[in-house]
Amino acid sequence: MHFTSERRIDDDVLERAFVVGDVPGFLWTLATTSTPVPLVLLGHPGGLRSMHPRLAARARALASLGFAAATIELPGAGERPASAASDRARVELRRALASGERPSEEVIDRLVLPLVDQAVPEWQTTLDELLDLPEIGGPVGFSGGVIAIGVRLAVMEPRIVAAGFFAGSFVPRSIIEEAHRVTIPLHVLLQWDDEGNDRQLALDLFDAFGSEEKTLNANMGGHTGVPQHAGENANEFFARHLR
Amino acid sequence: MHFTSERRIDDDVLERAFVVGDVPGFLWTLATTSTPVPLVLLGHPGGLRSMHPRLAARARALASLGFAAATIELPGAGERPASAASDRARVELRRALASGERPSEEVIDRLVLPLVDQAVPEWQTTLDELLDLPEIGGPVGFSGGVIAIGVRLAVMEPRIVAAGFFAGSFVPRSIIEEAHRVTIPLHVLLQWDDEGNDRQLALDLFDAFGSEEKTLNANMGGHTGVPQHAGENANEFFARHLR
Repeated sequence: MHFTSERRIDDDVLERAFVVGDVPGFLWTLATTSTPVPLVLLGHPGGLRSMHPRLAARARALASLGFAAATIELPGAGERPASAASDRARVELRRALASGERPSEEVIDRLVLPLVDQAVPEWQTTLDELLDLPEIGGPVGFSGGVIAIGVRLAVMEPRIVAAGFFAGSFVPRSIIEEAHRVTIPLHVLLQWDDEGNDRQLALDLFDAFGSEEKTLNANMGGHTGVPQHAGENANEFFARHLR
Repeated sequence: MHFTSERRIDDDVLERAFVVGDVPGFLWTLATTSTPVPLVLLGHPGGLRSMHPRLAARARALASLGFAAATIELPGAGERPASAASDRARVELRRALASGERPSEEVIDRLVLPLVDQAVPEWQTTLDELLDLPEIGGPVGFSGGVIAIGVRLAVMEPRIVAAGFFAGSFVPRSIIEEAHRVTIPLHVLLQWDDEGNDRQLALDLFDAFGSEEKTLNANMGGHTGVPQHAGENANEFFARHLR
């Protein structure tokens, strides 16, 4: 891990850009931290540059709870090399949605599963590096989407002790099978009227999680319209589980 | 409305028993209130005596937000005259559940609709009386179940400006139709693994509500196992809408 730049985004929050191998990312910490703090990995749909304002806002809210936050670019997104196969699958998925059809499971698999297979080891390597920093202690949470990546991480990565998922992307059936093996506390945000999402699939996924403690928090407002109170509620979840 | 007894249940919460006509109820207020306060009507499944500890706990939490709370006994419950027809329907419903069957819509209608028809005017008369008290100002919320009663009240009663429903009872199909006409902000609690409830019906009901602002908060823990954070979350909903 190499830090490539740093700046204050608030009086008390330090934002550092880094690369792990050829994967760029950001780390946000309280500038005044003296003891190692818990860490939340921020999932997102890809495209760090356009996602940055929302990610930084989430990191700020977590910093106010005393937590560090970090994210990395997704495979094939932003300035990382594109995947022709993924781009084809994305075009097919959008075409299905535009014509009012449910995308086929085959297209969802082709779009999401290679992304999960590539992204999860990258998150794990990044986590190794982050936990080596003296200012990061743990425990570790995962917050956001792509939910299929979050599910695989929750299954594979014992250092993640709580996850707040955003159910806002299509989920392969095989990931719903994997969800039975998730046992950590979960907080799942669902936008009930999200047109680019399959609500029933999200409910099936929530049902499948093996966790004894799981909360579904569903709201109106469309894909990007998560109400402020729902965001605060998700942060309260992390406050309960990472402190 | 006649008050029949009063006592302090905390240093600062006054509990008064009352009757409106032949319907008994309770009113909880902060003992030290100087200006008229918002009011939350507390719905419950019937049986004030056995429900009292849980109702008083909910009233205490609302009092800490500065709100009064009140409830009345349901028709046919507690010390009110039983209804032979309702008792028969309840036996049939329990028989269906015990044999692992879904109760028929006809049985659900026969159990719930007469209860709604009788209870809603009683709640409205009680509300008239409560709002005549100098210590109660408004706005008014409804919190709890029986959810079918809450839905009808939210449709019929313009003085109720926000409702926190507990989706823990069977809902007639006609009530799901009525739900389209509900437009106030809603917060719906659902126990995902509630054996005595029909989860799909609860999701259909949530979907049917016409409200622009509605939140579904679903958790594990069975019918009576609503986690503490979900109760706090419901109180935050009332704090946003009644203050």
